[in-house]
Amino acid sequence: MTIENLANLVAPELEKVNEKIIEASGNHVELIPTVAKYIISGGGKRVRPMFTLASAKMCGYQGNRHVNLAAAVEFMHTATLLHDDVVDESDKRRGRDTANNIWGNKPSVLVGDYLLGKAFQMMVADGSLEVLRILSDAAAHIAEGEVMQLSTTNNIETTLQQYIEVIDAKTASLFAAACEVGGAIVEDEAKSAALKEFGTNFGIAFQIIDDALDYSANPQKFGKTIGDDFREGKVTLPVIYAYERGGADDKNFWRNIIEEGAEIRESELNAAHKKIHDTGSFAATIEFAKNYGDKACKALNKFPDSEIKTAFFEIVDFCINRDF
Amino acid sequence: MTIENLANLVAPELEKVNEKIIEASGNHVELIPTVAKYIISGGGKRVRPMFTLASAKMCGYQGNRHVNLAAAVEFMHTATLLHDDVVDESDKRRGRDTANNIWGNKPSVLVGDYLLGKAFQMMVADGSLEVLRILSDAAAHIAEGEVMQLSTTNNIETTLQQYIEVIDAKTASLFAAACEVGGAIVEDEAKSAALKEFGTNFGIAFQIIDDALDYSANPQKFGKTIGDDFREGKVTLPVIYAYERGGADDKNFWRNIIEEGAEIRESELNAAHKKIHDTGSFAATIEFAKNYGDKACKALNKFPDSEIKTAFFEIVDFCINRDF
Repeated sequence: MTIENLANLVAPELEKVNEKIIEASGNHVELIPTVAKYIISGGGKRVRPMFTLASAKMCGYQGNRHVNLAAAVEFMHTATLLHDDVVDESDKRRGRDTANNIWGNKPSVLVGDYLLGKAFQMMVADGSLEVLRILSDAAAHIAEGEVMQLSTTNNIETTLQQYIEVIDAKTASLFAAACEVGGAIVEDEAKSAALKEFGTNFGIAFQIIDDALDYSANPQKFGKTIGDDFREGKVTLPVIYAYERGGADDKNFWRNIIEEGAEIRESELNAAHKKIHDTGSFAATIEFAKNYGDKACKALNKFPDSEIKTAFFEIVDFCINRDF
Repeated sequence: MTIENLANLVAPELEKVNEKIIEASGNHVELIPTVAKYIISGGGKRVRPMFTLASAKMCGYQGNRHVNLAAAVEFMHTATLLHDDVVDESDKRRGRDTANNIWGNKPSVLVGDYLLGKAFQMMVADGSLEVLRILSDAAAHIAEGEVMQLSTTNNIETTLQQYIEVIDAKTASLFAAACEVGGAIVEDEAKSAALKEFGTNFGIAFQIIDDALDYSANPQKFGKTIGDDFREGKVTLPVIYAYERGGADDKNFWRNIIEEGAEIRESELNAAHKKIHDTGSFAATIEFAKNYGDKACKALNKFPDSEIKTAFFEIVDFCINRDF
């Protein structure tokens, strides 16, 4: 797992982030720490806070502010997970019951709101208006992307451009902000911009790959429940390509499934899978993600070679060039 | 309507707040302005932004910052309404269909998130860390109160202290913040503290009265659907008093209804109403709210007499001393 090199390089700080997360999710209202700890400890790899820590270190930052800000970034991420699960009506996340499945929608919505408020309190305690600008922009942008996604769901005419706009907002903007913050705390505009560029392109690549895995030939390997997006009528890049490349029968098939909400059985899922692979749409999706991975790496040209920079390259590589 | 005197005193600024609200809820993702405008134009009286404007003016503030901050306060309020309606599974708010009833839970959760993010963007644009502190504290506190309310719902042993803690957090903290911001922009700590004290006590009184109206003798007059809280098993002050003052039979009645979720028909609602009035619980609730109203007025002692101060007194009076 090549993500581990970056994790090792920021291990002491990441430990402090975890302590900060536990401390900041404490509350005398028991349901808050119960739900917060359940989701925060749900097997996520802390990629976003790791990016904040590593970005700050790559900019030569020496203090402790990146620890608190990395925790704030993770709180923002956790809040979106809680709300996403309510919106998607998901029962499972990473193989475990979702919080809304255990406690219902109410605590998921409200504890999500609490964590978002807490994230802003942590940023205010940090005291940088530039950091607050970056992360409040991200908060609004994430929600904008999620709302946009509602209108592309069940819409087979969704364009590549609309798809990219959605994932840029809902996923890439938080990766971008997590990285940009690392440059903002050393007040270096050029480095901030480069890190934002890295985070944006990494985030887009990451989401494209995540969407591709829904149609992977080898789903068990990635711990995905295959076909979830398909069942929810989400129009992701493999579907956009397969619809574009398919003949009249294929187009009817996709329209029926995605728009008309035709009942999805094993046979439909297998047919979708076959069409996506036979038309080369799966391979084209991975190829498209690679472009963003390349752009992410190029954005780091501004930084001298370092162990952290190498570890960032490895994560991009790990994300994209795997055995699908 | 004595609320109108305050509205008239800040009318030009309130007009600008409304323009700012329209502008800031614009977005190329159509569902965002559609849902936002629906709920923002839903017949609310803009009491919170009015309080921000009036507080700033009472502190002698001359600029334009209060307009943007009042709009941010209204966005925070709107976000909580959208999420509340999802949590309460409400079909109606102020006699109209709720947003979640029309568009479903998804846009309500996500547009709420968007408006909260937007509110923080507006505060960042204002540029005062003190204002950001006040309003991020309020955001976390509101959500904390809402989660706390989940654990008092269906719990007939809820104490007066727990009830006050819930309404202080879920309702009063935003009134308090809306007022405190008015002092913060003139950087006057003593005035900020007095305005916060006013907002807190007004907010508590306001919520107690709102809860009392659920058992009013004259519900049509207040546009309330009588018995909503009762049906949801919410333990509000009239119920706390009636349970405390009731005999063994009364206690059984309340426990059955509130905790066991006994089916609530017209006869149960009438019985609850009768018990609350016969035990003097309704009158005691109003009396209790009056104490907070008095404290709110006293907090304004620090300010010289002015038209705005008089209008604030009138609103407190209007809120509490009506013909129930």
